[in-house]
Parts: sequence; C-alpha cells; structure tokens
Amino acid sequence: MQYYPAPLEKLINELRKLPGIGTKTAQRLAFYMLKMSDEEINRLAQSIVDMKSQLTHCEICGNITTESPCQICCSSKRDQSVICVVEEVDDLLAFERTKQYSGVYHVLMGALSPLEGVNPQDLRIEELFQRIKSESISEIILAMNHTTEGRATELYLAKRLGNSGIKVTQIAYGLPAGGDIEYADEITIAKALEGRREIKSET
Amino acid sequence: MQYYPAPLEKLINELRKLPGIGTKTAQRLAFYMLKMSDEEINRLAQSIVDMKSQLTHCEICGNITTESPCQICCSSKRDQSVICVVEEVDDLLAFERTKQYSGVYHVLMGALSPLEGVNPQDLRIEELFQRIKSESISEIILAMNHTTEGRATELYLAKRLGNSGIKVTQIAYGLPAGGDIEYADEITIAKALEGRREIKSET
Repeated sequence: MQYYPAPLEKLINELRKLPGIGTKTAQRLAFYMLKMSDEEINRLAQSIVDMKSQLTHCEICGNITTESPCQICCSSKRDQSVICVVEEVDDLLAFERTKQYSGVYHVLMGALSPLEGVNPQDLRIEELFQRIKSESISEIILAMNHTTEGRATELYLAKRLGNSGIKVTQIAYGLPAGGDIEYADEITIAKALEGRREIKSET
Repeated sequence: MQYYPAPLEKLINELRKLPGIGTKTAQRLAFYMLKMSDEEINRLAQSIVDMKSQLTHCEICGNITTESPCQICCSSKRDQSVICVVEEVDDLLAFERTKQYSGVYHVLMGALSPLEGVNPQDLRIEELFQRIKSESISEIILAMNHTTEGRATELYLAKRLGNSGIKVTQIAYGLPAGGDIEYADEITIAKALEGRREIKSET
C-alpha cells in the first residue's frame, strides 16, 4: 500500500499532524518541498528548530520572548499597573497589533474547562495573584474568548478578584467590525444590546 | 511593526513561502509548533531535511526514489515495453494508486509552455527518445494533464513519435467519476462526445 518512497511518506505523516493539514495538503506541501533548493529546505528546517530552542515564556506575564522578562514587562513606556488577562499568547499578540493598549499582560495558558480536566491549578492563575500581591496594580482587564470556557474563566477570576479592592473590567462583547445585524447570531446581538451605551448629544 | 519575537517571525516567513499557506495559516502553524514537544519538533525538522537528502530522481524514468534506478524500472513484474509519459512525479503516483497499470513511466518534469519559456530541451524529452532507441518499446501512452500546456506537449510528442513505428496512445478525456453532465464544462462534454465508444450488445 506504499506509493511513496519512505522519506517522503514520513514527511507527509509529520505534516499531517499539523492543524488544518490533511493528507492532500501534506502531499502538496511535501512535493513542493521536494522541488525547493537545498538551501531553502535547510533554512525552513532550521527556522523550525530555532523557533523552539530560542524562544521561552516570560517569567512574569507568560508572553513568548527570546529573553525573560519580555520587552513588554520591562518597558517603561507601558503602564505596569494595568494587567490585561488573556487565555493564550496569540490573544496577547492580537491586542498588540491594535497598538491601542499600553498596559501589560498576563497569559493564563488556557481557559477553565472542567469537562476537559482543565482546573484553576492547571492555569497561570496563582501567578496572577502573586503579581497582584507584590506589584501595585490599579486595574485588571479580563479579556477572555467569547466561549463557554472563556466565560467560566472570567467568572472564576471576577469572583476571586472581587474582594481585592482592584478595579476589574471586562472587554466588550458585541457586533464585530463589518458585522451585519441580520447575519449575527443571537448571543452576539443579545450581548450588543446588553452592552449598549448612551449617546451624549452635543448641545 | 514587529509583533513577534524574531525566531517566530522568521518561521512564519518561511512557512508563508509554501503553497496555499498565507499569513494567518503560517501564524497558526507556528503557534502550534511552539506548543509541540522538542522531540516532535526535531522529528518534523529532520523529516524535511531527510526527505531532501535521501531522495533522488530515477535516472531512467525520473520518478523519485531512494535508489536509482527506481523499483518500477527494476521490476520484472512490470511490462518494460509500455511507457506511460507523464508531466510530473505526482501524476506517476496518481497512476500507481489506481493499481491498474503494469507498465513503466517516463516523467517529463513539466509541460511545454512557450509563453513561460518552457521549451522541449527544458523537459526530459531527449531522454525519452534515448529510451526508445535503446530499449524495445511496444507502446507509448501519452498521459498529459487536460490543459493547454498538456495538450501542446502531447501534440509535440505525437508528431515526433509519428514515424517511429511505435504504437502511440493517449489517455481518455471525458466525464469524471461522479461527474454530472449538467455541471460539466463544454470542453469536457465535447471530449466525452468525441471519445464515445460503441456498446456491443450481447446476443
């Protein structure tokens, strides 16, 4: 049943383990790589190994970085008293891309999910409370994904942070940019309605 | 403008060079790789390098193989007098998957395309005629892609093979398996009509 030479078959199997890559795509990628020059192939393989060996997580916020603590945690331009709590590093980077946020972050490395066995002690939650104790924090922004797990994590944190005396906020959920009310789902519309704000008329 | 640490940025750029992988997919893959174990990462990187270093093209047919000549060209079970001419190695493997073909192959490594500067001398066409001279060939099957370039290559080969005294055939073009006439394009329908065969009634 083996149509491909062993090294090609092996590569296809490795590529298939990546998310969103099925057999067909893995085959196409492998064939493309077969036509790449030795130099290009080595650069690709090296960049995979380097990424893994050169990157580490920031000991403070959990961001990925070449040196810990990360640039954001060390920056004097950032407001170190405002912490935005996110689930994953990807979320942190999404906030960074907006260039609208000048505080710091705390990456939980996941969200609570009792069904999948993810409990508070599996996330970087204690690290967050350590920071709150040792640093002078004025605001905690909860920025979880708009999912059941995100919501559970948010509720858990909001409850535990409730008597800390720190201002706790949550990002807004509502109609996304370019969003069409007609095609939005019920939860989004309900959240948009719930989060409505008064428009002050200029007089 | 740099949101990612350098090693991650570099990996994303390398991944983006692969076909069908845009920035978003490259980011998702890179983040996934970040979470893979060191062992998994090394296995992936090694399989890429190995595939390139261990594979070569068969000196006879052009198939990819770990040892040249390839298994197909060396096999006593294959009819070495029938050569199926294909554009790329992928096509060869597609024929192999059918398990219906017992002859051998000749991979051209492309198709004629004067517009893109691909001329007969850029393909493995002389190698094909060398084989015809030195081996005892009874049939040449032209199995080009159903494209302008494939058709041009087919016509070129058919013309040159015309006075060789060898039987030259071409694969059938028509309605694909599961194909709906209603949704088939004009060329496919025209080819299906042109290639019609008489049904012999059993009496």
